Amino acid sequence: MTMITAVQDSSCTPGELASRHHPLLADAAAAVNTRVSFSAFAGREPSGPRGGDADALFSSVLAAPLNLPGHSGTLTLQIDEVSPWTRLPLGVSYPRAQTQALTDNAQTAQITLSALTIDERAGLCVEMIERMFAANEVLGLAAMHTTGQGRGMSQSGSGTNALDRGLEAVAAAWQVLSRVPSAAAWEQKFGPELVSLEKKYRIVPLGPALVIACASFPAWNVYPAVFANLMAANPVIVKPHPASVLQMALAVSIMRQTLTDAGCCADAVQLAVDSAAEPVTSVLATHPSIRIVDFTGSARYGSWIEQNARQARVYTETSGLNSVVLDSFEDTASALRAIAGSISLFSAQMCTAPQNIYIPESGVNTPEGTLSAVEVEQGLVEAVEAIAANPRRAAAVLGTIQAQRTLDEIAELTATLHAQGHVLSEPHSWEAPDFPDARTATPLIARVGLENENLFTHECFGPVVFLIRVPDARTALKRAADDAATHGAITAFLYSTDETLIDSAEVAFATAGASLTTNVTGAMPINFSAAYSDFHVSGLNPAGTATLTDESFVTGRFRVVQSRRPLRPSHN
Amino acid sequence: MTMITAVQDSSCTPGELASRHHPLLADAAAAVNTRVSFSAFAGREPSGPRGGDADALFSSVLAAPLNLPGHSGTLTLQIDEVSPWTRLPLGVSYPRAQTQALTDNAQTAQITLSALTIDERAGLCVEMIERMFAANEVLGLAAMHTTGQGRGMSQSGSGTNALDRGLEAVAAAWQVLSRVPSAAAWEQKFGPELVSLEKKYRIVPLGPALVIACASFPAWNVYPAVFANLMAANPVIVKPHPASVLQMALAVSIMRQTLTDAGCCADAVQLAVDSAAEPVTSVLATHPSIRIVDFTGSARYGSWIEQNARQARVYTETSGLNSVVLDSFEDTASALRAIAGSISLFSAQMCTAPQNIYIPESGVNTPEGTLSAVEVEQGLVEAVEAIAANPRRAAAVLGTIQAQRTLDEIAELTATLHAQGHVLSEPHSWEAPDFPDARTATPLIARVGLENENLFTHECFGPVVFLIRVPDARTALKRAADDAATHGAITAFLYSTDETLIDSAEVAFATAGASLTTNVTGAMPINFSAAYSDFHVSGLNPAGTATLTDESFVTGRFRVVQSRRPLRPSHN
Repeated sequence: MTMITAVQDSSCTPGELASRHHPLLADAAAAVNTRVSFSAFAGREPSGPRGGDADALFSSVLAAPLNLPGHSGTLTLQIDEVSPWTRLPLGVSYPRAQTQALTDNAQTAQITLSALTIDERAGLCVEMIERMFAANEVLGLAAMHTTGQGRGMSQSGSGTNALDRGLEAVAAAWQVLSRVPSAAAWEQKFGPELVSLEKKYRIVPLGPALVIACASFPAWNVYPAVFANLMAANPVIVKPHPASVLQMALAVSIMRQTLTDAGCCADAVQLAVDSAAEPVTSVLATHPSIRIVDFTGSARYGSWIEQNARQARVYTETSGLNSVVLDSFEDTASALRAIAGSISLFSAQMCTAPQNIYIPESGVNTPEGTLSAVEVEQGLVEAVEAIAANPRRAAAVLGTIQAQRTLDEIAELTATLHAQGHVLSEPHSWEAPDFPDARTATPLIARVGLENENLFTHECFGPVVFLIRVPDARTALKRAADDAATHGAITAFLYSTDETLIDSAEVAFATAGASLTTNVTGAMPINFSAAYSDFHVSGLNPAGTATLTDESFVTGRFRVVQSRRPLRPSHN
Repeated sequence: MTMITAVQDSSCTPGELASRHHPLLADAAAAVNTRVSFSAFAGREPSGPRGGDADALFSSVLAAPLNLPGHSGTLTLQIDEVSPWTRLPLGVSYPRAQTQALTDNAQTAQITLSALTIDERAGLCVEMIERMFAANEVLGLAAMHTTGQGRGMSQSGSGTNALDRGLEAVAAAWQVLSRVPSAAAWEQKFGPELVSLEKKYRIVPLGPALVIACASFPAWNVYPAVFANLMAANPVIVKPHPASVLQMALAVSIMRQTLTDAGCCADAVQLAVDSAAEPVTSVLATHPSIRIVDFTGSARYGSWIEQNARQARVYTETSGLNSVVLDSFEDTASALRAIAGSISLFSAQMCTAPQNIYIPESGVNTPEGTLSAVEVEQGLVEAVEAIAANPRRAAAVLGTIQAQRTLDEIAELTATLHAQGHVLSEPHSWEAPDFPDARTATPLIARVGLENENLFTHECFGPVVFLIRVPDARTALKRAADDAATHGAITAFLYSTDETLIDSAEVAFATAGASLTTNVTGAMPINFSAAYSDFHVSGLNPAGTATLTDESFVTGRFRVVQSRRPLRPSHN
């Protein structure tokens, strides 16, 4: 662990960190405001261990206790962590702390966190991000062997892109907090008398914050929540999924070491670990000392949290029905490849992956003439199969299936759909290079009609796609937007050369609260969400309330309290 | 009504209004950001009817139907409205609309509201504010004869100050909304390929908003909520208390006329009226189409709304235990006058009025030596009596008691306290000049100890003050801050020459979420809250969540939804 956490200069005051990282913070803030393209890591290589060194360091972490210096709790073997690539237990032990100890420690840490300036907290946060970037390859391997992502995605999506989303939150919070004036001299006449007051405005944190991570993509939502909280001086307890602890534990370790090196209380960031057999999330989320909960996970549990964690401000990202509406293609092959890619990427275990693809009965117009509905279906099935056919590409794009339960549910669904004659492409495993035991599956692709709404109006987690026959594209648009509003959706996709339809789609999905991507093909995955530029989750439908990153993601995490007294001459 | 609503130029497009009012809006925004002293109305006189003309116009409104052109509903006599000054029914009939009609109309109006630019909506809002200012005296008389405030306060606190708080909300929302970029050109390399996208960011309103007013001071909270909602394109339904409809009905009338004159749908602002016998607030607040609720009223009903209006974003201002901690006086007579004023102002029917005054057993230090606890009590009782002794001053300062129920509850409490030997000053009515039947009462002042916490740890609405004996000022400070955190408080007051104690108090009340006013005496009422400068309600304790005006008051009322597509050359 030493190599992971000590790659940067150690011992640096928060003030020095604030100065050192101000230029990057200012660049990130400019990107947040203009939402142009930006990455803190473009053209840079991590300074920490890479390649074989990273592999060796990662191996040394396995089958051993992960000791977080000064962290409460008893080291306990985490039996729920099994690599989806090797199907072998990771064998890591983590400290398991009592809920009361976590909240007590957090409250103590809050005092020192709150005493720092906004700039100092920003300096600390950016330093944490830089140290995590330095350790990107090792953190990536931890992500790979818990989430089941491919090695490339574990370092980009779960690495630099997640860190950029974290930095985006720092920059957004930095601006929101810095706008609150710290003082004012106030003079007003009351009758003939001039009343002169000096006023102070204090930023007061809400209190200990719980960040609940999902198993398949923890970093991407955890980093923004952690940093938005730390910026507002709320101490954070990171609660990973019991099957996917390691990356978050290493991240917490780096954040704690950063705090310690800066002379701050490490307990500003703590780790809460439980097991599948004895979960503690509900107890933590409803503890009276927990004042903020950030939740990523299932819609059902997210709703439970919202209903029950009434003592806390709750931010959620759950799930929904992301749709693709097909009307006409400018370039058929590119469009089919783009859609196939979004279905295949990390086996659709991403909250932005589409599930429902609407195909008009009359087919899809193309420059070469009309493609019949059946031809569109065939084209999609073939484009998906082309990805899975090449094992190296499949390993990079599809990755593995994080949970055995997902695979079991898909098998059950496949049987049901088979019986009803819906299956166009049956899921099958494929052999990943170097990982013969990897838990893999190609996407299940099914053809359904609008009469089968019981099948497609709830989220089927993982690689499941419904090709839904509809009378026409406008019917599809209405249905997809209505379902987004009712059942939740984060993204929507449209392929059309009809500007009137595009306009209608922009309005319909904006109203439903799903971000719309129209006619995008090429190297960028169409469901890629760019830090600093793409707003992620609208808060307008059941898919969640935590928007990365708008001001509402920040403003609820602190309050302003004022004091005033007669103006003193020296304070004028 | 014509004279009320047509004092400004009529017929003006939202764009013209945006240009016309931009300078004032920019000034207000600058004040919001620096929180220095500002008023849109300083040095200006309302252009509408004043003096006898205002009286005559107000009289013509009474005992008649108030027709809101185009408003849904059946004109129904409002039997719950009785002037606290004359005890005569106002006799006004208002349109009573069905809940479904109100929400349907609101949804229709939302479309046109949402189509306006942010600047256009700001122009409309400022125009509404200007027209209400023009009608300030008539609106003030409506406030006076529903809330029972004195004529002066009804034109300042319920008039210009409330309008300033409204303009403050417009300015805050204008800045928050204007910061969201409407578009971005985004380019990023994916491998060798440069991906170029054009992105649009749309501000999407949450939907119909319900603004629930209290009986005693509706304008002050209604205006900020209405304008924050309109700025974010949320249509508003104003729901006044059945005993205090008239001022809000006239305000809604002016706002609707402004919308109509600007060619917009008047139903962007509607009025929901019910009766004490058949209340509709709960039905409205939990209606699935209502997406935002702003509530001012009792803690109990506020809590019910929060628990039950789960379909809506809820902002509350309820009540709490505002405290005064006494340690030492710089100027004894001024301090006692200041405290007596805050107890007496509008008979403590304001959410900022103190209820619990802590007096150390050992007395209060003054430049002339120590004032014993009994002398402090006597001094306060005498300072309060001095206000009530002069009928003209009493009418201006104390005003009347809005509800008979308040008087009944105080009588009951007085009997209880008498039996226990606590009463220092028994409430009695006094005769208001020109209004012999006015519902008046001097404050009930009681001496209690910390052992009587069952008496002073809940809000006693109206003119009730507990002088609480404590061992010392630090004990008082801890108790007052703890009670603020537990039971809610908006304000706190301290008189001390001890800088260490002042520092402690600033931290303690900031943590508890009560704004602190220290050592203030003189012409400004110590519980005066200045628009643009004083943050009102912290959101950190049970006294409410609606902070006038920080960014959290605005950011929850809209969301941002994006769309993106390949960059087109003409859109570069």
